[in-house]
Amino acid sequence: MVNIVDRETVLCISLAARPSNHGVRFHNWLFDHYQLNYLYKAVAPVDITAAIAGVRGLDIRGAAVSMPYKQDVIPLIDALDPSAERINAVNTIVNDDGLLSGYNTDYIAVASLLRSHDVDPGLRVAVRGSGGMANAVVAALADHGMRGVVVARNEETGQALAQRYGWEHSLEVPEDAQLLVNVTPLGMHGEHENVQAFSDEAVERASVIFDVVAYPVHTPLIRAAERAGKAIIHGGEVVALQAAEQFKLYTGVEPSAEAVDQAEAYAQQ
Amino acid sequence: MVNIVDRETVLCISLAARPSNHGVRFHNWLFDHYQLNYLYKAVAPVDITAAIAGVRGLDIRGAAVSMPYKQDVIPLIDALDPSAERINAVNTIVNDDGLLSGYNTDYIAVASLLRSHDVDPGLRVAVRGSGGMANAVVAALADHGMRGVVVARNEETGQALAQRYGWEHSLEVPEDAQLLVNVTPLGMHGEHENVQAFSDEAVERASVIFDVVAYPVHTPLIRAAERAGKAIIHGGEVVALQAAEQFKLYTGVEPSAEAVDQAEAYAQQ
Repeated sequence: MVNIVDRETVLCISLAARPSNHGVRFHNWLFDHYQLNYLYKAVAPVDITAAIAGVRGLDIRGAAVSMPYKQDVIPLIDALDPSAERINAVNTIVNDDGLLSGYNTDYIAVASLLRSHDVDPGLRVAVRGSGGMANAVVAALADHGMRGVVVARNEETGQALAQRYGWEHSLEVPEDAQLLVNVTPLGMHGEHENVQAFSDEAVERASVIFDVVAYPVHTPLIRAAERAGKAIIHGGEVVALQAAEQFKLYTGVEPSAEAVDQAEAYAQQ
Repeated sequence: MVNIVDRETVLCISLAARPSNHGVRFHNWLFDHYQLNYLYKAVAPVDITAAIAGVRGLDIRGAAVSMPYKQDVIPLIDALDPSAERINAVNTIVNDDGLLSGYNTDYIAVASLLRSHDVDPGLRVAVRGSGGMANAVVAALADHGMRGVVVARNEETGQALAQRYGWEHSLEVPEDAQLLVNVTPLGMHGEHENVQAFSDEAVERASVIFDVVAYPVHTPLIRAAERAGKAIIHGGEVVALQAAEQFKLYTGVEPSAEAVDQAEAYAQQ
């Protein structure tokens, strides 16, 4: 099949050391659905400084930024949206006629889900994990007015993350946690897919379960939450919403929830 | 239609101040025909230095270079193929794991056509024109062992071009010219489409007529040559052959003459 691009086609890319096909399929599906002359291509950059020069020099409209470049790109761009400034990490660059602005649509997506699921800011939170995504999640929870505990075996990153937002760090899940959030690879397809990120007892004591793992959506934790009849926010929602935010930033078009679901289903084929 | 690209797709681009859709359609048709996971996109670069940094940083396999960048890119790349070195102009960049080499497939195509049409090196040549393409054409003619006259109204560029290859410059077409070559826009679609680049008398005296104009292929000069029963080399051959050379450089695949014809027909739709 001959790819339909021309001199007017607007190019968007992703920059990741190990690019996935998710964004490529998600965005190209939506570009087609909304009849936008855009093309999305995953790139494993040789050198991030030269890659960002290329975004400018080749007039690339947008770039998704993944590990390990989310901090590296900050000195290379011109402006930070509050979503990226808040957590000192960029996952999306938008090029407006040569002005490169950094956003963090993971933060935006999590903040938006806490609102749309009507999560009570008074709930006490336990977040498991202390990596880059945990940083976005804890910031969004804190900005939703919530307080809690970062549960991480890595004392250094766990304490640093907790301190940054005025939370506590613990090696154990506190017994009073009402919102449990998993931001580790536990339950993710692969090596840890059968591991349940929080125990049945912790799930039973909580009222809301939030698992950031998206592949698969039905992790052992989400299945335990379903069995226990708890309110659930799952990783598929985060992935789709953050990608929809990127789409909106790149194109100015707000995709419908139905189109996002279809694009996400296509992306996972 | 959802464009079929993924993380493995190899990206090629064109760099031109006013990009055409010819290369996009030609190459994407051939990529599909040979089932190669490649994509070609036309780009109007904001800044040629940043654009070449982007070719490196985004691991772009190849770039076609058009006006006004054919000399500008030389200090920005790592190596020159003899075809580009000979005429100090690059129209194609190939990126081999970060090593950027410049080629000139216009020169390669003209040199190849002189051989495949069995043009007698003893013929006396008149070349009309003194721009960048005329430079490639005179170099290829000189390297085919031919001598002749550059016919150009612009004395400065005409004399410089003639001197570079040990030819003469003239304001008039010499009466003894046996190979007539048009490298001006005379006969090209647009403002000059009804202008015949050499007179009927000059055509009658010559034995071979070579018109570099490709759009349309049937220029007034080519029609005059057909009427006079002369041997003909036309611009469509140059365009298709130089693009086929680029395709070979980017992919390592030598396209069949039939596939090149079909790709060219698709490109012109």
